[in-house]
Amino acid sequence: MGDRIVMDFAFSARAQNFIDRLRAFMDEHVLPAEAEYYGTLTTGARPWNVPPVMRELKEKAKAQGLWNLFMPEPEYGPGLSNVDYAPLAEITGRVPFAPEIFNCNAPDTGNMEVLAKYGSSQQKERWLKPLLDGSIRSAFCMTEPDVASSDATNMEATAIVKGDRVLINGRKWWSTGIGHPDCRVLIFMGLTDPDAPRHARHSMVLVPVDTQGVEIGRMLPVFGTLDEPYGHGEVSFTDVEVPLENIIVGPGKGFEIAQGRLGPGRIHHCMRAIGSAERALEMLCRRALTRTAFGKPLASLGGNADIIANARIAIEQARLLTLKAAWLMDTVGVKGAKSEISQIKVVAPSMAQSVVDAAIQIHGAAGVCDDYGLTSLFAHARTLRIADGPDEVHRSLIARLELKAQAAAAGIGTERGQAQ
Amino acid sequence: MGDRIVMDFAFSARAQNFIDRLRAFMDEHVLPAEAEYYGTLTTGARPWNVPPVMRELKEKAKAQGLWNLFMPEPEYGPGLSNVDYAPLAEITGRVPFAPEIFNCNAPDTGNMEVLAKYGSSQQKERWLKPLLDGSIRSAFCMTEPDVASSDATNMEATAIVKGDRVLINGRKWWSTGIGHPDCRVLIFMGLTDPDAPRHARHSMVLVPVDTQGVEIGRMLPVFGTLDEPYGHGEVSFTDVEVPLENIIVGPGKGFEIAQGRLGPGRIHHCMRAIGSAERALEMLCRRALTRTAFGKPLASLGGNADIIANARIAIEQARLLTLKAAWLMDTVGVKGAKSEISQIKVVAPSMAQSVVDAAIQIHGAAGVCDDYGLTSLFAHARTLRIADGPDEVHRSLIARLELKAQAAAAGIGTERGQAQ
Amino acid sequence: MGDRIVMDFAFSARAQNFIDRLRAFMDEHVLPAEAEYYGTLTTGARPWNVPPVMRELKEKAKAQGLWNLFMPEPEYGPGLSNVDYAPLAEITGRVPFAPEIFNCNAPDTGNMEVLAKYGSSQQKERWLKPLLDGSIRSAFCMTEPDVASSDATNMEATAIVKGDRVLINGRKWWSTGIGHPDCRVLIFMGLTDPDAPRHARHSMVLVPVDTQGVEIGRMLPVFGTLDEPYGHGEVSFTDVEVPLENIIVGPGKGFEIAQGRLGPGRIHHCMRAIGSAERALEMLCRRALTRTAFGKPLASLGGNADIIANARIAIEQARLLTLKAAWLMDTVGVKGAKSEISQIKVVAPSMAQSVVDAAIQIHGAAGVCDDYGLTSLFAHARTLRIADGPDEVHRSLIARLELKAQAAAAGIGTERGQAQ
Amino acid sequence: MGDRIVMDFAFSARAQNFIDRLRAFMDEHVLPAEAEYYGTLTTGARPWNVPPVMRELKEKAKAQGLWNLFMPEPEYGPGLSNVDYAPLAEITGRVPFAPEIFNCNAPDTGNMEVLAKYGSSQQKERWLKPLLDGSIRSAFCMTEPDVASSDATNMEATAIVKGDRVLINGRKWWSTGIGHPDCRVLIFMGLTDPDAPRHARHSMVLVPVDTQGVEIGRMLPVFGTLDEPYGHGEVSFTDVEVPLENIIVGPGKGFEIAQGRLGPGRIHHCMRAIGSAERALEMLCRRALTRTAFGKPLASLGGNADIIANARIAIEQARLLTLKAAWLMDTVGVKGAKSEISQIKVVAPSMAQSVVDAAIQIHGAAGVCDDYGLTSLFAHARTLRIADGPDEVHRSLIARLELKAQAAAAGIGTERGQAQ
Repeated sequence: MGDRIVMDFAFSARAQNFIDRLRAFMDEHVLPAEAEYYGTLTTGARPWNVPPVMRELKEKAKAQGLWNLFMPEPEYGPGLSNVDYAPLAEITGRVPFAPEIFNCNAPDTGNMEVLAKYGSSQQKERWLKPLLDGSIRSAFCMTEPDVASSDATNMEATAIVKGDRVLINGRKWWSTGIGHPDCRVLIFMGLTDPDAPRHARHSMVLVPVDTQGVEIGRMLPVFGTLDEPYGHGEVSFTDVEVPLENIIVGPGKGFEIAQGRLGPGRIHHCMRAIGSAERALEMLCRRALTRTAFGKPLASLGGNADIIANARIAIEQARLLTLKAAWLMDTVGVKGAKSEISQIKVVAPSMAQSVVDAAIQIHGAAGVCDDYGLTSLFAHARTLRIADGPDEVHRSLIARLELKAQAAAAGIGTERGQAQ
Repeated sequence: MGDRIVMDFAFSARAQNFIDRLRAFMDEHVLPAEAEYYGTLTTGARPWNVPPVMRELKEKAKAQGLWNLFMPEPEYGPGLSNVDYAPLAEITGRVPFAPEIFNCNAPDTGNMEVLAKYGSSQQKERWLKPLLDGSIRSAFCMTEPDVASSDATNMEATAIVKGDRVLINGRKWWSTGIGHPDCRVLIFMGLTDPDAPRHARHSMVLVPVDTQGVEIGRMLPVFGTLDEPYGHGEVSFTDVEVPLENIIVGPGKGFEIAQGRLGPGRIHHCMRAIGSAERALEMLCRRALTRTAFGKPLASLGGNADIIANARIAIEQARLLTLKAAWLMDTVGVKGAKSEISQIKVVAPSMAQSVVDAAIQIHGAAGVCDDYGLTSLFAHARTLRIADGPDEVHRSLIARLELKAQAAAAGIGTERGQAQ
Repeated sequence: MGDRIVMDFAFSARAQNFIDRLRAFMDEHVLPAEAEYYGTLTTGARPWNVPPVMRELKEKAKAQGLWNLFMPEPEYGPGLSNVDYAPLAEITGRVPFAPEIFNCNAPDTGNMEVLAKYGSSQQKERWLKPLLDGSIRSAFCMTEPDVASSDATNMEATAIVKGDRVLINGRKWWSTGIGHPDCRVLIFMGLTDPDAPRHARHSMVLVPVDTQGVEIGRMLPVFGTLDEPYGHGEVSFTDVEVPLENIIVGPGKGFEIAQGRLGPGRIHHCMRAIGSAERALEMLCRRALTRTAFGKPLASLGGNADIIANARIAIEQARLLTLKAAWLMDTVGVKGAKSEISQIKVVAPSMAQSVVDAAIQIHGAAGVCDDYGLTSLFAHARTLRIADGPDEVHRSLIARLELKAQAAAAGIGTERGQAQ
Repeated sequence: MGDRIVMDFAFSARAQNFIDRLRAFMDEHVLPAEAEYYGTLTTGARPWNVPPVMRELKEKAKAQGLWNLFMPEPEYGPGLSNVDYAPLAEITGRVPFAPEIFNCNAPDTGNMEVLAKYGSSQQKERWLKPLLDGSIRSAFCMTEPDVASSDATNMEATAIVKGDRVLINGRKWWSTGIGHPDCRVLIFMGLTDPDAPRHARHSMVLVPVDTQGVEIGRMLPVFGTLDEPYGHGEVSFTDVEVPLENIIVGPGKGFEIAQGRLGPGRIHHCMRAIGSAERALEMLCRRALTRTAFGKPLASLGGNADIIANARIAIEQARLLTLKAAWLMDTVGVKGAKSEISQIKVVAPSMAQSVVDAAIQIHGAAGVCDDYGLTSLFAHARTLRIADGPDEVHRSLIARLELKAQAAAAGIGTERGQAQ
């Protein structure tokens, strides 16, 4: 009967232990600190500060071992599987600034993973160590204003190898984290060899933020907010030079690394999106229970119960799909989970956007101002439908894989199976 | 590290073995028999026959131990858990007449479960045995034409205890299976004591079909088809008398039994709906790959890839939610899985309806006639949004449970938590 | 102030007069005849009869001048504009068999228009006259089973000119009306010159149904119904010969005529679809008001009011768009109304499908059987999303026209404006 | 044949003349001034300025007679009907700050209408004149933070008559325009007589902004923007006293006036929402035509053409419904157009939100920052689903009217017809 334990929807004892401790930490320390955090955050133009309470919370989290939970390599963190990390990421997704408290925030997580997996020992020593420690922050410079980033091979900024140096030129934007006062390094992705095969043309290069020629431009507002103290910036690179060893793995390896980087990153976003949807549903229900119109609580009026039921159903389904994708990543790797990763990337942000939109509606005018944080949750969910590949690109990939599988099962010729 | 085995999305070895054998059986025996089955089925007015190939297929399935797979009690079948049965039910859902081959078709499954769980040894001997054996068929008479069945307490037909007899009167309809030539018994649900508490008023009574006063009326068309040889009939009961021991458990226990009966029944429907959605998607993809318009396969045109991707996503999510509900039923019971059962009951039929609708559209005119069986799949999925509780009632239950939980978590007073 | 009369949403006095008379006729004669009509209709295998009440109703309608209302040419009918005909077609759409009563049913209307507009005087004398008179019926043979009809240039059946004869070969299906006992003639569309420019290759040919080599095959079920006594049939043509003068206008003119034929035909379908949606909403509301669950009328429960409001909104919008398209056809012609005709063709059937689906749901089990005629309305609306061009083709056309207009307004080069 | 002119979808010659002139003005003066306007606008904390270019544009518009176009009373403006004003409002809706240029911006329009229709000659002289002249601005104080404004009878702030004075107390928020440097007067709505019939309890009072006890609190962000220089403010009233003659019409007339005020206001919002949707679709198409991915313009990829077609269809339908509602208001009055006004109020903002959301998506990351103004359009559309009655309240009204009509037509008893 031993086989009965598979197809099990319970978390492992180890994950459950982390869940309990993380929830307690959120309840005890994070939720009560929300007002203070936002109250001491500099907004508007830079320079921004990091609210003092953030540093305190980080110390506490580190002391409790709630640190680098995302990091799969046991050398650098608790070494949790994706399945075990999923509920933890979800819990931190309830509060926009919470992931940083546990050193689990994008884009630092992705950058740390790249360095842990592909970095030279020198690169690890110089950049991974302080990132894991939380003492510095980093940015990732990939998206460009002048070309459609949905097709990453469009990238035009250049990283040309000249002897033992790399010469970098071009304009990037949506470089998240570039505005952080502690941001010290960025990973730049650019064209190295236009004549190489399509996915071997680009390189990833580590660039210290204070290198000559790196210019940080304006910070981009997202539905009116700047996401301080991280920010999403424009960065221009003019004849920037770094040593050849700053290239990760080697010239032309950019896409290979990107594939490895984006898989976990996408799923982390989805886990957190589910957490934010749960929080929105919680707010929706509380409002529905306590606000009265026409002599009844809103929960009893019209289609509001349907909205609540549909939200619950949508969250459950998105969570299960996220967990399955995580499980596939754990068991067969990112490549084998390609369709499922794209599936959750399509599902989770849209689902979160809908649930938050419903929560906004039931809060009435209070919903569209920032009093309940709903517009921030909305802006974040909406942005996720574009970041790390727009829905359209993911749907196209899912369909291609589906058609290929169906063509194979039906014995339909390959050239037709490759339609699309 | 033993704890790592939980949150596992793989089927148990035992289930996998059944899956492999069942798939092979379907490929080898059932799919090739589709034409013969429909070709020898009497349609139109009764009496109907059972196509000879059905009896052959049943013998083969029984011989291979692919029999009574649904039955959780090891005494009467393989004793599979709900999670282990789910993929099997899904596989049978690919062909409308397949469940019967494995003695796993509604409403017989539900009736057998009722008898296995609540029947007296005499009731078991007389009715359960031949049902398990596949030698007779049965019907379930609950829905009434004159009242909204979404609120089951509306039921008006009566089952009055008179000494050692039960006197039955009233009109039922949508009594599935009543038209089958082998239908020998029906389970009747009716009002016994209008003064008892709301959920203790009704009884379930076993009534042999040939009892005096039982009159089978017309067979109801479902989107134009009669679902031969089962049929959905009108049945009138005029001064029908059966012995008191034909009441299952006892007078007033109808709702208690119904709860136990409907949980598994609903989830079986959902599993099969997922199988029919998979088959529709398969047909959709094959058509998209092989049909050409404007010089390209349909798969390459317009939004068709999005339709395929969305269908894949919807099926995956519905399957996972079904499995989670099944797992909860296995681990905490029907009561603890109440919300999840209602969730899949809302999700799976609608999802199947949408996927089949998309498959119809891509087949063009061929989709709306019966040539590909798509309209039958559609009719079945559409009907499921009403049968065993309409979506509206399930959504209302999900919302009520959600609001109750949220009210409790937020410390909001119970009377408010009971809104709705 | 004279200019104030434009942008007026009231019907003309003449149309209003017809509306009043037609409504009265429907109330007085048609609705009360529904039971008799269906009761005397032969269903199942052919030959079918025409229920005697149909002939009576036709006589009455003709006597009251409610005849050939669709016909825009004053020579052959009242000569109503499309805008004036719209409300009349809508009214007849409330009862599936009503259009025939007023000689306004597809496909005869389209065939009559073709003959009126393009027919020779001999063709008019022989075929148009008895069609206008209602003494014979006709069919239109365009769709083929082996190719995607969404791209009409795929058509493979042939109409080869041999001296003063036309030789016809090929297979058609979905030839509506071919099963009618009074069907005497069909319009066949086929390939005449494969080397001509794409839209000049096909011809339309009048073929008496009893011509040697014309074989009527099975009648195609639509969601299980055969739409007796019209039917949608398979028709094979084997070395069928007709005189050259049976070609309408001339060889290669098929597409030119089809364009003229399909514009009004599509909009008539949409008008009737709106009528059927109105009837479904009416049934929905009556059920919601008179059926009780949980102690309240269904209208007061959950999201049912939202469903009603959304249905009302959707119907209003579809009607207005249909009227605008009709108005454009009246004022600038079919060509100038191309986008709008495609727009309503996308909107009206989908809207009707949704409203009918909602009506089915609120009727519960009674909704999926034929007791309220809802499944017939559903099947018809669903089929319309495919007939006369599937939604996908119309959306593609709308987008192409929109992009072209936007490109022109923005001064974007034509080759880009022709994307798609 | 004179009757043929009705059901006409063309604008009147007079409206067309205004349309042409307004379009020319927008192209010549407004669109080129967008950059300057936003460049000279003070954002962030108050006090705000009015960009100098706004004063210039207003002068130009006034000089050309493009002034107070919204005002139906010929005494105070061109006296356009709602149908004639609709296309003009739509045109101004393309640029968020454009309505003010023509003195057609909310909430001043509503306040002017109230004064024109209900004001005493003294009130008109003091407030209407400078408002019509554009020399002052005004606010409307109705929504309260502590109660659900969807049920306006919830309003708790008080306007108590004491002899010849009115004593005002309470807290309002979402008082649009209160932050404008030229805002001189506000209309306050509050409870006067709690014992009067439900809709005769509240009064509308004119309160000069500088009255003692009026305190303007924070300005509320809408999805992160403050809508400078108008702003949406919190306003507290502490023992504010104004003369009795500042009550409009008289005590207890608040709801009566509100009904008259909100009808046109709602439809103006919808007209502008359609204009903003048109602009979003224009941007969407231009991006789709000029941006390239995977070697093709976005317009040719995946489901983008469907998105464009669906947007075009949705805009057309919303415009037609808006025009019909306007026409009803012109011909039978606000009361007779009640359902249609609610219908467009449900349709137009949601439609605009969807179209803008699609435009954001196709712009990728550029869509979620302010570079194309899409997030502002989004925020505005989203807010409109709450302002002037949330969708839920309007749907409920539409359903109630529909059920009442259907009950009457079917002869179903009134008490049932009043379900809901």
